[in-house]
Amino acid sequence: MTEIQGLSGARGQALLPAAVLSRRDVAPRRREVDDPEAEVERFQTVRRGYAEELDALYEKTLAETGAEAADIIKAYAVIARDDFFFKKTIRQVRTGGINADYALALERDKVCEKFAAMEDPYMKARADDIRNVCGELIRRMNGVSPDIRLSGDAPVILVAEDLMPEDTIRIDKRRLGGFVTERGGVTSHAVILAKTLGIPAVVGAAGILEAVGSGCELYLDGGAGRAVADPDAATREAFLTAKEREETQRALWAAAARERAITRDGHAVAVCVNSGDTESLKAYDSRICDGIGLFRTEFLFMDQKDYPDEELQYAAYRFAAEAARGKEVIIRTLDIGGDKQLGYMDLPQENNPFLGYRAIRLCLDRKEVFRTQLRAILRASAHGNLKIMFPMIVTLEELREAKALAAQALAELDAEGLPHAERVPMGIMVETPAAVLLSDVLAREADFFSIGTNDLIQYTTATDRQNERVQYLYDPCNLSVLRSIHMVIQNGHAAGIPVGMCGEAASDDRLVPLLLAMGLDEFSVVPAQVGKVKHMVRSADFAALAPLVEELLSQREIAGAKALLERY
Amino acid sequence: MTEIQGLSGARGQALLPAAVLSRRDVAPRRREVDDPEAEVERFQTVRRGYAEELDALYEKTLAETGAEAADIIKAYAVIARDDFFFKKTIRQVRTGGINADYALALERDKVCEKFAAMEDPYMKARADDIRNVCGELIRRMNGVSPDIRLSGDAPVILVAEDLMPEDTIRIDKRRLGGFVTERGGVTSHAVILAKTLGIPAVVGAAGILEAVGSGCELYLDGGAGRAVADPDAATREAFLTAKEREETQRALWAAAARERAITRDGHAVAVCVNSGDTESLKAYDSRICDGIGLFRTEFLFMDQKDYPDEELQYAAYRFAAEAARGKEVIIRTLDIGGDKQLGYMDLPQENNPFLGYRAIRLCLDRKEVFRTQLRAILRASAHGNLKIMFPMIVTLEELREAKALAAQALAELDAEGLPHAERVPMGIMVETPAAVLLSDVLAREADFFSIGTNDLIQYTTATDRQNERVQYLYDPCNLSVLRSIHMVIQNGHAAGIPVGMCGEAASDDRLVPLLLAMGLDEFSVVPAQVGKVKHMVRSADFAALAPLVEELLSQREIAGAKALLERY
Repeated sequence: MTEIQGLSGARGQALLPAAVLSRRDVAPRRREVDDPEAEVERFQTVRRGYAEELDALYEKTLAETGAEAADIIKAYAVIARDDFFFKKTIRQVRTGGINADYALALERDKVCEKFAAMEDPYMKARADDIRNVCGELIRRMNGVSPDIRLSGDAPVILVAEDLMPEDTIRIDKRRLGGFVTERGGVTSHAVILAKTLGIPAVVGAAGILEAVGSGCELYLDGGAGRAVADPDAATREAFLTAKEREETQRALWAAAARERAITRDGHAVAVCVNSGDTESLKAYDSRICDGIGLFRTEFLFMDQKDYPDEELQYAAYRFAAEAARGKEVIIRTLDIGGDKQLGYMDLPQENNPFLGYRAIRLCLDRKEVFRTQLRAILRASAHGNLKIMFPMIVTLEELREAKALAAQALAELDAEGLPHAERVPMGIMVETPAAVLLSDVLAREADFFSIGTNDLIQYTTATDRQNERVQYLYDPCNLSVLRSIHMVIQNGHAAGIPVGMCGEAASDDRLVPLLLAMGLDEFSVVPAQVGKVKHMVRSADFAALAPLVEELLSQREIAGAKALLERY
Repeated sequence: MTEIQGLSGARGQALLPAAVLSRRDVAPRRREVDDPEAEVERFQTVRRGYAEELDALYEKTLAETGAEAADIIKAYAVIARDDFFFKKTIRQVRTGGINADYALALERDKVCEKFAAMEDPYMKARADDIRNVCGELIRRMNGVSPDIRLSGDAPVILVAEDLMPEDTIRIDKRRLGGFVTERGGVTSHAVILAKTLGIPAVVGAAGILEAVGSGCELYLDGGAGRAVADPDAATREAFLTAKEREETQRALWAAAARERAITRDGHAVAVCVNSGDTESLKAYDSRICDGIGLFRTEFLFMDQKDYPDEELQYAAYRFAAEAARGKEVIIRTLDIGGDKQLGYMDLPQENNPFLGYRAIRLCLDRKEVFRTQLRAILRASAHGNLKIMFPMIVTLEELREAKALAAQALAELDAEGLPHAERVPMGIMVETPAAVLLSDVLAREADFFSIGTNDLIQYTTATDRQNERVQYLYDPCNLSVLRSIHMVIQNGHAAGIPVGMCGEAASDDRLVPLLLAMGLDEFSVVPAQVGKVKHMVRSADFAALAPLVEELLSQREIAGAKALLERY
């Protein structure tokens, strides 16, 4: 047993065989070629193929991982396409009659040396990019496959020096049970991917490559940042016991998922799911939940080279409406900007994108984009129980303008004789302090509220949740946030509209009883959490929870609030 | 008269002679030199001198204009120092026996051409930097002074193609009455500088260089984005009348400045000034105000190569305490981070710096820095009426920790026998929605509140005020913000502590009556606004203002709130 302490990348535990990824440089040998033109052609084909793969990867990365990772891939593609840069290599092949991979290796070393001598950090980063691109071209010209092969079909824990952004995209994700990397920090691509996949990751685990070989058994505790090669019996036992306990609980939740979300004393709430694409809706089971409480529409804009047209959107919204089988589907209008950027939208670089041009702000500015989406949603409303939700509202004026544009789109459909539901309710995400503080006013003109806790916590506490240095302040149990939630529910109910929640807090173990006690009408959570939330609701006694709200509101410290919530 | 419509850079009007700044490239001629080594030496001296100037400029720019402008200057300095880059030029001088400026011009053209052929936007920007650095070196080698000369001593309006960041630092600011530039956008350096200096600026005024010559008279309306060369009598007349009216008003304000801030029916408030350095305190007149409501301490950290020590800080705080002559001085502890970055602090790059590691977060993390500052303030408290204010508080825990560290510092002083005031009140900036929503709790443990509207508006409305695309949402009359202010004043008073305001809203014409009606105890404003605020307070009838608050709180739209405020 060899235990290696690294950094916690993503929580979770796994006990699986290791699969080691090696990505070493190929050092090409000098060869004379008979037909230099054919050699040039071979080089150009590899280069073109790589550039095209990078383009596809770019779009995929942008959609799956975000702009930061995607930008690196774009930079690679620019270099791979840079004819000026490869001119000398090609000349060497032609005049020297030598193999292109060797010529390229020489040129790469020369250029990188020059760049490396400059002090500018941009230049240095550029040199790394050039080195990586040339390295990949050389590997490909030597028949080293770009695919990351994991032998067999069984799940594994991937062990690597570090993961390049392009690696993380190419890996067969269904087989991944965890990551350990020698290098890399807690914001590396491996971590981002692990969190997305919901698998454990340990990074910065110096020595792990030496400790394991492919196939050796590996135990990973992502939360503790611990990796154990060839774990002993005690370690294995502890893991397996915990796993069994978890499975028992999962069985309980799975059973609850098929029941109604109603407390022991008869208080009923809705439990819905969040969905981010039509793909996931194929697995959607209308029996286990009360509808789709949040249907994100960004995926439609991300898989495209240009804005998706009305027909494409209509098909997606109709698919969702029909999948829900008469239950509600709340479609959130485009929430792009912030950390979600799209190339063709030509969005400006911003110093604080979370406080910038995004969501409803962008839609009210680019009215044609908004109009197309509204028309598509309204047309799809003929096929189910659709509602429209506007994100990032901060003033009543915005809500009114959005509603007016929807009314206009509806009038267009009528003029064109296109069908739509008689009434399509329109509500808002309450995810800014401004909307919380004005929720009495907004409730009179919105048909429903849905509290978006992820952003609400960020803005209320002035904390970027992705910024590790201040993450301790990003706390769903922050008292100001809990007071905000209470205020919104009170104001919503006073105006007679339902209040839901679609942020992560809606499935937070500590908060479910409190939200229930505050009178939250709808919990919209990821599909995997439906059973848990229903189980919690079904185990609760609504009347007994009543004092919790007052007690919570009189708390002064977060620790006090947490202790109180643990008790319930 | 030639009228040119540009973009509004900074508000204000001016009628002054134009001073044209030309910054054209010098095209050096080929000369043979007798002593190539001397020529190399001449080149190296110019290069060294330029690099050293850039270093000094970097520090200055960082302190005065911010990290963005400073980074450009740093990039220039890196290039100017890059021996590798200039190697070829020097070789040309030695082997060809030619003048260095000519050799450099050739090399520049060659390198820039190469860079320009690359598609990468970083590369293109790097080519611009190289071109600018080489251009400046060539100008200097040809005896073209780096200083921007404005002939005479009288104030002028500067007319230029565009302003480089280094230009804006070198200009004699006392003589500047305004800017017009042919190019440049509303976020250009000219605009930043104009706003800092409080002078009008028009940018993107295509054709202005052709329309004016140095000395020609120029009328500028910054708010309207209008520049008029050789204005006609009517334009001049309108300007002069408006100016006269303004001067009458200024006289009224100047008279009010020496009186107490008390309404006609006897409700008294405090009017204090904000100060950001000891320099401005030299002009501080203790008779015209009730103290220093906000003493920012960042300047002490910005003029340094490393953290300022206790003695240096103590001297500054003592100076402020003594300048106030017994009146209160509220010293805000270090509010660095966000858009204010310091090289030696080694702060991480953040995606959303306004939601990041800044102010009290940084101080509670870097306790040694905080301890030094607290000791210095507490020691200075022996010399006047000092109070300590903590910025960016979002939880009670932070306030308690900050107070505990202050108590510890006090105990140290006692142990060392160093004097301090018997009691130094400690309050907080209320500038996050979290603090607003928890203000009842915070008021029980803070000695005073000061509402920081600039940040509060940003966080409440999720709007970066420096981001033009969403600036329309950054509105001091936003209803959620006004409700927040009201809540904070109510909660402060319920706990028996005074509530002040030190953001720009405290001197906003529309808001002063409302703030007065809400019961705000202290208005802390820039020195130039003291007279205006006092005049407004002295013209008001407190009892008559009472209904304003209820009416305002029942408003639903911002336009309604503004109309109501205009009426009062």
